[in-house]
Amino acid sequence: MRALLAFRPEIAPALGAFTDELMHAPNSLTQAERELIAARVSHLNDCTFCRESHAAIAVCHLGGCEELVASAVADPEQAPISEKLRALLALAGRVQQGGGAVGDGDVARARSEGATDGEIHDTVLIAAAFCMFNRYVDGLATWAPSTWEDYEEMGVRTVEDGYRPLPPRGVEA
Amino acid sequence: MRALLAFRPEIAPALGAFTDELMHAPNSLTQAERELIAARVSHLNDCTFCRESHAAIAVCHLGGCEELVASAVADPEQAPISEKLRALLALAGRVQQGGGAVGDGDVARARSEGATDGEIHDTVLIAAAFCMFNRYVDGLATWAPSTWEDYEEMGVRTVEDGYRPLPPRGVEA
Repeated sequence: MRALLAFRPEIAPALGAFTDELMHAPNSLTQAERELIAARVSHLNDCTFCRESHAAIAVCHLGGCEELVASAVADPEQAPISEKLRALLALAGRVQQGGGAVGDGDVARARSEGATDGEIHDTVLIAAAFCMFNRYVDGLATWAPSTWEDYEEMGVRTVEDGYRPLPPRGVEA
Repeated sequence: MRALLAFRPEIAPALGAFTDELMHAPNSLTQAERELIAARVSHLNDCTFCRESHAAIAVCHLGGCEELVASAVADPEQAPISEKLRALLALAGRVQQGGGAVGDGDVARARSEGATDGEIHDTVLIAAAFCMFNRYVDGLATWAPSTWEDYEEMGVRTVEDGYRPLPPRGVEA
């Protein structure tokens, strides 16, 4: 992402700030829950780079639970996760299909499992945002790391630093 | 959009700044070209609100050419537009299908019609961004104005003010 945004350095700070507010800032949805929504949507969009990146970040947040993350991403209805997160992942899957695919029943299910209006809003926006990021990355045929270890390393960095652009080289934060 | 973002006021400035840099800031792609890419992608995503909003902004930029805008949005291959814009609208249509649908041939066509790497980058990012905005708007079932006059009025405002969030009420800019 940072390599792509080098084409338009004036866009990078705003996109980084948006992503950081959405994914990394304090929220009643945990960072792990938000990363699982991102990884699930990326999986549905066949975007390997984003799926693996955000699965790796979720694994970091969940203390190494690779199997839990893999099952939530591949088949949330069967995964050992909360009913609320299951409903939010289902809602995110509808958003991935298209805004018009979201039905009143999807929102009602999330509400009945305890999701607030803000959490429903954020789930829709995270899912929609990854429909952007997935297309941006794959549409420009980004180089993608090929081993899980590469993604793990990126995941650790993102957990620590968030999503805002890094300061220019030679500048101390 | 502004009503939706009232759910997360801390996200609005970053998303507004991103959209303004992408759609409104100086660029070798004209504002009309960028708005046509947005309206075309919104049309392909069946998002009436965004299609009409951005078509209306394009009409403003083009001095009232409603027929030209309607044809570029509905059928760019037949519309009376430049070959470069035709190629960029085709590229945007691929991005709408999914990042993996973009082929080397789509990028080569745009380059052969004179598009720069930066313009290709921006076309992919605008198309991807409207795959987000369209899902955000329709996924949350936003109220949509029903007459063309409403969209024209919003178009005039956006041409004048851009996309950054308006200052809070009572605060003079």
